[in-house]
Amino acid sequence: MPAPPILPPLALSLGDPAGIGPELIAAAWAARVELGLAPFVVAGGAEVLRAAAATRRIDLPVVLVTTPAEASDKFASALPVLAEVGDGTFAPGMPCAAGAALALRSLEQATALALSGAASGVVTAPVSKSELAAVGFTFPGQTEFLAHACGVAEDDAVMMLAGPSLRTVPLTVHIALAEVSAHITMDLILRRCRVIDAALRRDFGMARPRLALAGLNPHAGEKGRMGGEERAVIAPAIAQLQAEGIEATGPHPADTLFAPHKRDTYDVAVAMYHDQALVPIKTLDFDEGVNMTLGLPIVRTSPDHGTAFDIAGQGVARVNSLVAAIRLAGEAARHRAASL
Amino acid sequence: MPAPPILPPLALSLGDPAGIGPELIAAAWAARVELGLAPFVVAGGAEVLRAAAATRRIDLPVVLVTTPAEASDKFASALPVLAEVGDGTFAPGMPCAAGAALALRSLEQATALALSGAASGVVTAPVSKSELAAVGFTFPGQTEFLAHACGVAEDDAVMMLAGPSLRTVPLTVHIALAEVSAHITMDLILRRCRVIDAALRRDFGMARPRLALAGLNPHAGEKGRMGGEERAVIAPAIAQLQAEGIEATGPHPADTLFAPHKRDTYDVAVAMYHDQALVPIKTLDFDEGVNMTLGLPIVRTSPDHGTAFDIAGQGVARVNSLVAAIRLAGEAARHRAASL
Repeated sequence: MPAPPILPPLALSLGDPAGIGPELIAAAWAARVELGLAPFVVAGGAEVLRAAAATRRIDLPVVLVTTPAEASDKFASALPVLAEVGDGTFAPGMPCAAGAALALRSLEQATALALSGAASGVVTAPVSKSELAAVGFTFPGQTEFLAHACGVAEDDAVMMLAGPSLRTVPLTVHIALAEVSAHITMDLILRRCRVIDAALRRDFGMARPRLALAGLNPHAGEKGRMGGEERAVIAPAIAQLQAEGIEATGPHPADTLFAPHKRDTYDVAVAMYHDQALVPIKTLDFDEGVNMTLGLPIVRTSPDHGTAFDIAGQGVARVNSLVAAIRLAGEAARHRAASL
Repeated sequence: MPAPPILPPLALSLGDPAGIGPELIAAAWAARVELGLAPFVVAGGAEVLRAAAATRRIDLPVVLVTTPAEASDKFASALPVLAEVGDGTFAPGMPCAAGAALALRSLEQATALALSGAASGVVTAPVSKSELAAVGFTFPGQTEFLAHACGVAEDDAVMMLAGPSLRTVPLTVHIALAEVSAHITMDLILRRCRVIDAALRRDFGMARPRLALAGLNPHAGEKGRMGGEERAVIAPAIAQLQAEGIEATGPHPADTLFAPHKRDTYDVAVAMYHDQALVPIKTLDFDEGVNMTLGLPIVRTSPDHGTAFDIAGQGVARVNSLVAAIRLAGEAARHRAASL
């Protein structure tokens, strides 16, 4: 068996410097040995990280580097930070335009490093969409930015939520519940499920991923008695996916789909709307959920929480989700490297 | 402190004799000492129960009684069964009209005993709605039958699902998801929440029940950006409930409402639609969920599963939910008696 390839480090974006991102990055580095984390480099913000570490009483040595390659050796003794991206002094919990601009440069740089192959993937710390918009960011969120930067259509950049208990993809997200039915089309289901199938093969090393699609209505419509979308749209889409060799099943009644014995029967649950996916993952894996973007040429994960300005600098934010995001990105990078 | 009142036994309906109800009743009786179950009497079906017990290799002594009062003394040594209701021989997994008719007489008799006060509450075993319809049952389900039998408007008989981790009420149930928005009215919310508040006081002994109402849309609408029902309907209803002295909060984003730290902040989660309530309870408490009808003059619970004709007679059906239903009915009956 050949030795596993030595991978470049992961690139972490700083996130909004007034949010909890920097302190969690410091906490993750401090726990690197205990948690067995593979090397990562942070795009910018050395002073931000030092100050954030201090709020958690973490003694954080920082080493400035100019390339990710330098970071791998230095990670054991200091947190490697790319010098060129920028830096500054920011108050926790007080977002500002300069901080948003730094967060954006950090995101851009981390993405560029992953695209060039200098980093083996990108883990994005949380940003404030409203603060970013104020400095000219025109995307609804980081995922859309990444799709654009990678030259991928937004519809093919698919958000998956992953935790220790469950992987799930919501097919629709930030729309009113009353509008969901109109958005669930054959094209949407096929397009997203093809991306999911390919990504689970590539990023998780699964030979034949099992996709379980939820119904939209109670009891998955119960033969059309409580809504017709299952028979008109979801079931035909599943038949088409099966014809393409994708192991798709359903539509399953959503209420039982996330029970323990059902979770053993699939690798990812494909939900029709935001809360159908988010309720079970946050109920089961509240602190350890990871947001992963499927369908990109690069590996990308992020913690499943926001900037949490209200608790930044207080030392109470939990590092579990960021750590899980770093681990998952590392695993996906290894699977991609192994399949080359 | 006065001695607790001696309560009449609970009345159990038999359920469809071809389903798993009879075998689970036998299993619950067999475990009465180990589980500390208070006495119950079954409305009819002595032969059905003996045969069902045999399929689980339970040695079930049955004693025929004519009143629930006789049952209390005999419960320790035999399963008391009301003789007059009826009986028969039925094959597990093979529903038939005669079986449905027996299930209906059992339900009617158990309900009558609770209404008269001879039983301290009713626990209904599962029936088949389609089989019952074939013998002239005109209600959509047992809950509507009970509301009618008790002289309560169907809208005031409220289904609550209760498990070890969560109590939750779905405000709408068996309608298409696309129709939910139109059904969420101020009147519906107020009416149901008043019933819930009163029932938690009466049946659970809570001095001031905490009702957490979920939003309908992602992020509870996020200030109207993803749907307007929260601001137009749900929030005003909550304000009205608060003005009436009911401890109602929300609308809460549904995705985080069922996470462990949030569940500590309320006594019941009021959901807007079927799967918003059923996904978390079945994810958390799959085997131990109980269906309880709030707002009736009698105590009524049932296990949260169906007849399961496909596994009846195989000895594999789990008794947890029926046992939890018996326990919960007993607790509610004690709370009602203590407040008299």
